[in-house]
Amino acid sequence: MTDKSIFSRIIDREIPAHIVYEDEFCIAFLDVRPLQKGHTLVVPKKQIDKFYHIEKNVLEHVMIVSKKIARALENTVPCARVGMAIIGLEVPHTHLHLVPINESKDLDFSNPNRLSMEEGEILNLAKNLEEEINRINL
Amino acid sequence: MTDKSIFSRIIDREIPAHIVYEDEFCIAFLDVRPLQKGHTLVVPKKQIDKFYHIEKNVLEHVMIVSKKIARALENTVPCARVGMAIIGLEVPHTHLHLVPINESKDLDFSNPNRLSMEEGEILNLAKNLEEEINRINL
Repeated sequence: MTDKSIFSRIIDREIPAHIVYEDEFCIAFLDVRPLQKGHTLVVPKKQIDKFYHIEKNVLEHVMIVSKKIARALENTVPCARVGMAIIGLEVPHTHLHLVPINESKDLDFSNPNRLSMEEGEILNLAKNLEEEINRINL
Repeated sequence: MTDKSIFSRIIDREIPAHIVYEDEFCIAFLDVRPLQKGHTLVVPKKQIDKFYHIEKNVLEHVMIVSKKIARALENTVPCARVGMAIIGLEVPHTHLHLVPINESKDLDFSNPNRLSMEEGEILNLAKNLEEEINRINL
């Protein structure tokens, strides 16, 4: 049996997170160690390590949800564009990173320097992002 | 009118590339400046800058094709897993990177050092990858 990942524990509300979107198949929340302001993770609820082992309809759904969230992020955080990445070397539960970027080094996951934000600022960001996600119709 | 991107020119066979997959909606070829061996680009044929502006069915399709190619890459190039990224700060035509990786710095696009491979080795890699893509049924 697979151990419950940190993301499954967020899904089950055993660990708190700033959740900005949730539906039957996936959840999205602010990354706790953001590379940039607005760095969001989109996570399929079913715990599968690699994205290329996720079933077709769920993977398609995760991509369309990511499209919606990327548009909301671009409207919420000033940036040149929203980048996307799936790496997954640390947590064996597929998570898609959405990161507002201005240059390619803004999406370097080997960079140990992460953004530090005040709790109030994080709460405000999560609220604004969630509202913008709900506003966008695709 | 939008200028034709370098990727549209590859699609129209005006510029050569090591193409490993093609269908009605997208094309995939080896990156000419690979971060790692097997670094492949998946590109929707319609020239749209940001992935979150691509129409739903095409974006879903690109993701399922990427799933297939990622599995083929994992079977072709020794690696811990296949990472994925969309950045797009340089070419305004959506391109999804698939990169065999062993650590997170293997997917750092700000790294100016790119892999140098002999033409024979590239041809052999493209041939093996294409065969593996064709072999995989999803």
